Amino acid sequence: MLQVKLDSMKTFLPLPYEDALAPRLKQAQNWLKTATGKGSDYVGWVNLPENYDKEEFTRIQAAAKRIQSDSQALVVIGIGGSYLGARGVIECLRSPNYNLLKKDTPNIYFVGNGLSAEAMGEVMDLVQDVDFSVNVISKSGTTTEPAVAFRFFREMLEKKYGEEGAAKRIYATTDKARGALKSLADAKGYETFVVPDDVGGRYSVLTAVGLLPIAVAGIDIEALMAGAQEMHGICQQDSYANPAWVYAATRYELYRRCGKKVEILACYEPSFRFMTEWWKQLYGESEGKEGKGLFPASVEFTADLHSMGQYIQEGERILMETVVRFGPSAREYPVPYDETDGDGLNFLAGKPLDFVLQQAMDGTYLAHVEGGVPNLVIQCGKKDERTLGGLIYFFEYACGLSGYLLGVNPFDQPGVEAYKKNMFALLGKPGYEAMGDALRAKLQG
Amino acid sequence: MLQVKLDSMKTFLPLPYEDALAPRLKQAQNWLKTATGKGSDYVGWVNLPENYDKEEFTRIQAAAKRIQSDSQALVVIGIGGSYLGARGVIECLRSPNYNLLKKDTPNIYFVGNGLSAEAMGEVMDLVQDVDFSVNVISKSGTTTEPAVAFRFFREMLEKKYGEEGAAKRIYATTDKARGALKSLADAKGYETFVVPDDVGGRYSVLTAVGLLPIAVAGIDIEALMAGAQEMHGICQQDSYANPAWVYAATRYELYRRCGKKVEILACYEPSFRFMTEWWKQLYGESEGKEGKGLFPASVEFTADLHSMGQYIQEGERILMETVVRFGPSAREYPVPYDETDGDGLNFLAGKPLDFVLQQAMDGTYLAHVEGGVPNLVIQCGKKDERTLGGLIYFFEYACGLSGYLLGVNPFDQPGVEAYKKNMFALLGKPGYEAMGDALRAKLQG
Repeated sequence: MLQVKLDSMKTFLPLPYEDALAPRLKQAQNWLKTATGKGSDYVGWVNLPENYDKEEFTRIQAAAKRIQSDSQALVVIGIGGSYLGARGVIECLRSPNYNLLKKDTPNIYFVGNGLSAEAMGEVMDLVQDVDFSVNVISKSGTTTEPAVAFRFFREMLEKKYGEEGAAKRIYATTDKARGALKSLADAKGYETFVVPDDVGGRYSVLTAVGLLPIAVAGIDIEALMAGAQEMHGICQQDSYANPAWVYAATRYELYRRCGKKVEILACYEPSFRFMTEWWKQLYGESEGKEGKGLFPASVEFTADLHSMGQYIQEGERILMETVVRFGPSAREYPVPYDETDGDGLNFLAGKPLDFVLQQAMDGTYLAHVEGGVPNLVIQCGKKDERTLGGLIYFFEYACGLSGYLLGVNPFDQPGVEAYKKNMFALLGKPGYEAMGDALRAKLQG
Repeated sequence: MLQVKLDSMKTFLPLPYEDALAPRLKQAQNWLKTATGKGSDYVGWVNLPENYDKEEFTRIQAAAKRIQSDSQALVVIGIGGSYLGARGVIECLRSPNYNLLKKDTPNIYFVGNGLSAEAMGEVMDLVQDVDFSVNVISKSGTTTEPAVAFRFFREMLEKKYGEEGAAKRIYATTDKARGALKSLADAKGYETFVVPDDVGGRYSVLTAVGLLPIAVAGIDIEALMAGAQEMHGICQQDSYANPAWVYAATRYELYRRCGKKVEILACYEPSFRFMTEWWKQLYGESEGKEGKGLFPASVEFTADLHSMGQYIQEGERILMETVVRFGPSAREYPVPYDETDGDGLNFLAGKPLDFVLQQAMDGTYLAHVEGGVPNLVIQCGKKDERTLGGLIYFFEYACGLSGYLLGVNPFDQPGVEAYKKNMFALLGKPGYEAMGDALRAKLQG
């Protein structure tokens, strides 16, 4: 269902490394399977495609149907892992223009992922005059961005539908037992879904966190899970027949031995843009610690061949590139014939656009390798639920392995606290007063 | 109108460098002003805000009015510099949700910036049943992506309105005298606008290339140009009173002396996302050559503080960060009071969201500096036409200076040809047959 191709890698990694790394990958894999490595409290995602809560899954599908029937819009409140996965999947499988399409599913707006008054206000304007529901996603219920946004949208809903009516339109995805949001949900009677204790935000797209908004968009979440399950099986192999081994080992060697400091994830489908954002969180947050880790960046080709293409071809040789390729598009667009042939493209007339794209992918691959940028190709099937479910699990699994190869805990994110603490102190949060004074002094130089 | 703030830079650059670099900046500035440096055929953008073609500018405004009156949609066909600037400005000043807003201006769709059948087909579906016009932007008219897209959309228009009717709905921004698109436009009677000979794609947003789509979106292009003109005046100064000197010198020193290989452009407004894409092309394509140049990346805060934030705080210390800050939002959203205060945020109740944002920006600044990431802050006025016009010119001017400091030609892009040649060969373009065979042999290993 997915193949990692390393055709030109010998140019960059002439020495054998597979055998040397195999025992370490085996060890890493064992840590994942037995929950005995660093961060082992957070490996619940590993067997999720097999043992997810089927009862809750059915409730997610039912809730999605209810939202589809009573709402023209769904406002999804969440940040980080409670935002990027759902947006990535919806854009990838429906469209980045999802809200513009004629469709029988609600528009979906993502808020609470920042503090821009303009961005939030715009969504308030867009849902003002339509029936809408809210899915608020936060394990604790106290993360500033989503909690603030929820205050605004809850107020809107309560004004519009009364407190009881609003309660029927609020879906809380949160801790199973504790926390501010869980307490509120129980008190008000919101339907709740669970952010599992043993799955960190960036690994949570295949839990209720991602699945409810994805299902509301009309995406077949059973097929998505089936794809992940299939990949879960494939990733059981403790050998290089496991594509996650290949990906983890190659990028690690390129980083460790070849001075490649930046990994660019490329795709030729504009609809994949937010999946690259999801991937950046997955890898950046899992590996970027202790002064280590490949810096994750992304490009959208061929657009960015006319932008970042120059740098990739000839800039600092600190880059490696991973290209996600999907199978042929269902859309057949033969290039029109033009009798004047002013643009000289009649040699393409009658050929499907997809054929042109294939040659662009191959041509770019050869050009970048020639320019000194190692290229890894992740060849997938056609862009659908099954393929994407498999790709998501593949990236997660390879990320766990990769973090262990690097020697870090792939499941914590200690660095995310730094800005939060400073922000609390500057905001005057009770208990942070002294720190606030110290920071203000620093700001004034 | 714009200030580059370096408050904590002494931590990272303890040695004086300003005096040492001043003569080189003066030299670079002189090359820009007198068109005597590397790539001097392409410095037409330098005095553009003063001496742009006023007659054409009036025609752009008239064409925009006509499109607004007879079209519900405008399809903009272009790639690279013929795409990113217009999209960046429209999203920044109107909205990333521009097409969803209720408004009295047409929807705007960007195509011809890739080869995805799905992405192009979707726009065909979206404009199928509405009155639409096309702005095709290509100096030569032969660049594959836009030329192919133009074949499709021209065919659609001709089927819908007949050849004559279509001709009145096609606006060609192209070479003033030569090339495939200019010839076709003259033969068919399309209205044409000029891609100046002495302005490269990535510096062209303030020419007809960017201005026509921007004006169609209802943005005041006079104010945009006035902002650029103002900044043009400010950039005349050959001293560090010139903010472009400060930016160019600082990033050069961080790159050259501190091992900073990646520059992250950050903004706290989601609407700025495509301006960061424009900026990436500007800097990546201008500097990424001869094995040199800062790798340009971007983040959207605070969203990405819960994604790339971990890496920025604690990953490889190869990063510098440039933060664009805009003045306060016109939208006042006082945080609602909640008597239960489950989320513990009542200490913020009544404070505008913008206040929270300001503290997040300051808190993040301090956290990242503390974490070893030098932060440059570009403090702008409120997000409007004048400010953005100034910011665009500032970035362009600083990029010219910066490229000269680096010792490269900031106005060419030789590396962009590599993929194109390979693609032509693989596509079977006449004249490339032998190369095609060689490449196919390589692909088969």
